[in-house]
Amino acid sequence: MADPIKLGIAGLGTVGAGLIKIVQNNLSILEARSGRTIQISAVSALSKSKDRGVDLSSYAWESDPVALAKRDDIDVFVELIGGDSGPAKAATEAAIAGGKHVVTANKAMLALHGQELAVLAEKKGVNLRFEAAVAGGIPVIKTLTESLAGNNITRIMGVMNGTCNYILTRMENTGLPYQDIFEEANQLGFLEADPNLDVGGIDAAHKLVLLSSIAYGTQVDFKGAVLEGIGRITIEDIHAAADMGYRIKLLGVSIMTDIGLSQTMRPCLVPNESPLAQLDGGTNMVIIEGDSVGQIILRGAGAGEGPTASAVIGDIMDIARGINIPVFGQPAKNLIKVASISTSVENPFYLRLNLRDEAGILAKVSAALAGAGISIDRMRQEGHETDAAPVIIVTHPTDRETLNKAISAIEKTGAAVDTPIVLRIETV
Amino acid sequence: MADPIKLGIAGLGTVGAGLIKIVQNNLSILEARSGRTIQISAVSALSKSKDRGVDLSSYAWESDPVALAKRDDIDVFVELIGGDSGPAKAATEAAIAGGKHVVTANKAMLALHGQELAVLAEKKGVNLRFEAAVAGGIPVIKTLTESLAGNNITRIMGVMNGTCNYILTRMENTGLPYQDIFEEANQLGFLEADPNLDVGGIDAAHKLVLLSSIAYGTQVDFKGAVLEGIGRITIEDIHAAADMGYRIKLLGVSIMTDIGLSQTMRPCLVPNESPLAQLDGGTNMVIIEGDSVGQIILRGAGAGEGPTASAVIGDIMDIARGINIPVFGQPAKNLIKVASISTSVENPFYLRLNLRDEAGILAKVSAALAGAGISIDRMRQEGHETDAAPVIIVTHPTDRETLNKAISAIEKTGAAVDTPIVLRIETV
Repeated sequence: MADPIKLGIAGLGTVGAGLIKIVQNNLSILEARSGRTIQISAVSALSKSKDRGVDLSSYAWESDPVALAKRDDIDVFVELIGGDSGPAKAATEAAIAGGKHVVTANKAMLALHGQELAVLAEKKGVNLRFEAAVAGGIPVIKTLTESLAGNNITRIMGVMNGTCNYILTRMENTGLPYQDIFEEANQLGFLEADPNLDVGGIDAAHKLVLLSSIAYGTQVDFKGAVLEGIGRITIEDIHAAADMGYRIKLLGVSIMTDIGLSQTMRPCLVPNESPLAQLDGGTNMVIIEGDSVGQIILRGAGAGEGPTASAVIGDIMDIARGINIPVFGQPAKNLIKVASISTSVENPFYLRLNLRDEAGILAKVSAALAGAGISIDRMRQEGHETDAAPVIIVTHPTDRETLNKAISAIEKTGAAVDTPIVLRIETV
Repeated sequence: MADPIKLGIAGLGTVGAGLIKIVQNNLSILEARSGRTIQISAVSALSKSKDRGVDLSSYAWESDPVALAKRDDIDVFVELIGGDSGPAKAATEAAIAGGKHVVTANKAMLALHGQELAVLAEKKGVNLRFEAAVAGGIPVIKTLTESLAGNNITRIMGVMNGTCNYILTRMENTGLPYQDIFEEANQLGFLEADPNLDVGGIDAAHKLVLLSSIAYGTQVDFKGAVLEGIGRITIEDIHAAADMGYRIKLLGVSIMTDIGLSQTMRPCLVPNESPLAQLDGGTNMVIIEGDSVGQIILRGAGAGEGPTASAVIGDIMDIARGINIPVFGQPAKNLIKVASISTSVENPFYLRLNLRDEAGILAKVSAALAGAGISIDRMRQEGHETDAAPVIIVTHPTDRETLNKAISAIEKTGAAVDTPIVLRIETV
């Protein structure tokens, strides 16, 4: 057998403990498949004494992850600390500078600093791999980078935040409002320390922009992504969508056009018969479309100890097998900067307007839509107890900019008591 | 840029033409991603004059694929001839012997000769890759071999024959009997020259046994697979299944147990809400379960020019990028031989019995089932115009061997006028 591959693992939360369990329990499989033994040389975390359900006694301990990254007895630095900068980034840079490969699950760090880290890694000839950063155990990075390397990628779509999916599913199943389920998710420990990372769509957008970079050969551009969280979705929206045969999902879409890259992460309506509609709780899905392959759908657990650790060990096995390809599928120095745009793709839209309860108000709304050239597919007004009358409108296909103009026109009439809810209806 | 990677393509059917289109149309993408240019040096097919919609004028022509495989100006021999032996195998062997990498879409050749070919390739240090052989454009070989390399794989399931899926879907949609739709599929050119390869489950089983080998580190064992085609499925079965909330799919299942490997390819009932039930026509799906990753579902086009060529070019790109891992994920000489078994997993079963129309017959059937310890979940008898009364029984979970004993007992009573239809009900 060839030389062992030696790991230093920084961060011993769920994923770190899961990785250690795989190395301990499946070592003979790992050896058979890579032709090398996998050795954990050293680990690092905040607390040395915490019980993580794994025996760490044979591994050296470093309290400083940067010191771990610099150790001579590691070939691969496994970064599971998290956070877009701070110790995770410092240790990653130290590892690369020392000629170590890096495997990370850190989507925030890569979404914000992926370009510079990739340039550093490629200059040093080391791997910087991040399958675990996107959609947990689903092999989406490898599929996009390697399996579909012959394709001109035309679109990527994904439901990639389990917490949002949990909240929307639970609202639907219980009939309880957003705030109640948000509290429940918080108590269950499903939310990040800053919950806006989840419910604001930031975490999911971090993942989407990494996929865009590989797909289109562009520099990671998180700032160019358009984000809209799920916080304004009401139980009425979920019921109205259900009545029409749709479910609401926080859906990311990335499309490259002649005039720039469109990356959106927004709640959308998807038809019940769509594979996207069938995701409950923490299940993620990524849909990739390419000129040759057509449509590929990947589904699996988007988080959790086992699935995420599975992705981490998959990257380690690739390194053990001698695979070394550019971080984003082509040399980082060749990745281009492109303009970020909003798509001009036409879709039907769902609108929820809370209208002033006055005669002629609906006529004003209809006129504003007609004035923008938008025709109404269906409309309904619910009974109501307050002064505002909730009206739901489904438009025929139009583009977002045209719709935004119509919404501005509606707002100018003073017909709506608050900002309308606008949700794209996807047909995939 | 590094040296070009030079291809020799043998077989210019749909997939061969599709591959040439990708190389011609997406060359700049291929170069950006692999750092090398992709050059087609020579091609081979039966007819030189046939119009394939691609310009072949700049490629050398070889009428003999073995001669093509031996050319000095190729690095990768792309085998798209088909057939489990004959010219495909001879040319593959010649290519390997000459130190060329091989990329093939030939499931039959690998299912029957994969072990010996893998040993040859690994002795020579060349790649033998076959992503296109299983489920068209779906990246299942790479996912299993690389992404999930840290997992102890516990089960593989797949709908991997588009023609069978087309026939079953069309029967359901049109209400026409099997034979009519079989003829239709034949006229549409969907069937292999030997239709039993499709409708007998052979083609799909070829794919399943390749997956087993990677998953469990076993030698490819096509003979050990249990096959049952779709030829006896009637429109009544499809309707009865639909009434109970199921669809019928030709489903492959591979499970490793302590006493051996179970590989079955059989028509099964799957619940409407299962992702497996949502496949129409040529769409394939593979479900992989591992101890860490949980369940991963991969879906896409299982055949056709673009999807299959996408898989072929993906393998070529891997070779261009210097990836070289064992054919079945670990050295072929280490792959073990295991006993082939029928699973003892318990499932509910669907039975269709054509019973003699006599008093007391149903009591005999019930007694035979009860005698084997099998309890009935539901039973129904349809009106009938012939002497035989069709009775549909759904059992509570039992294992196949117990059920087979009960069926034998039923047959001994003389109650049934023909061999009963037995379909497993899957719950995935």
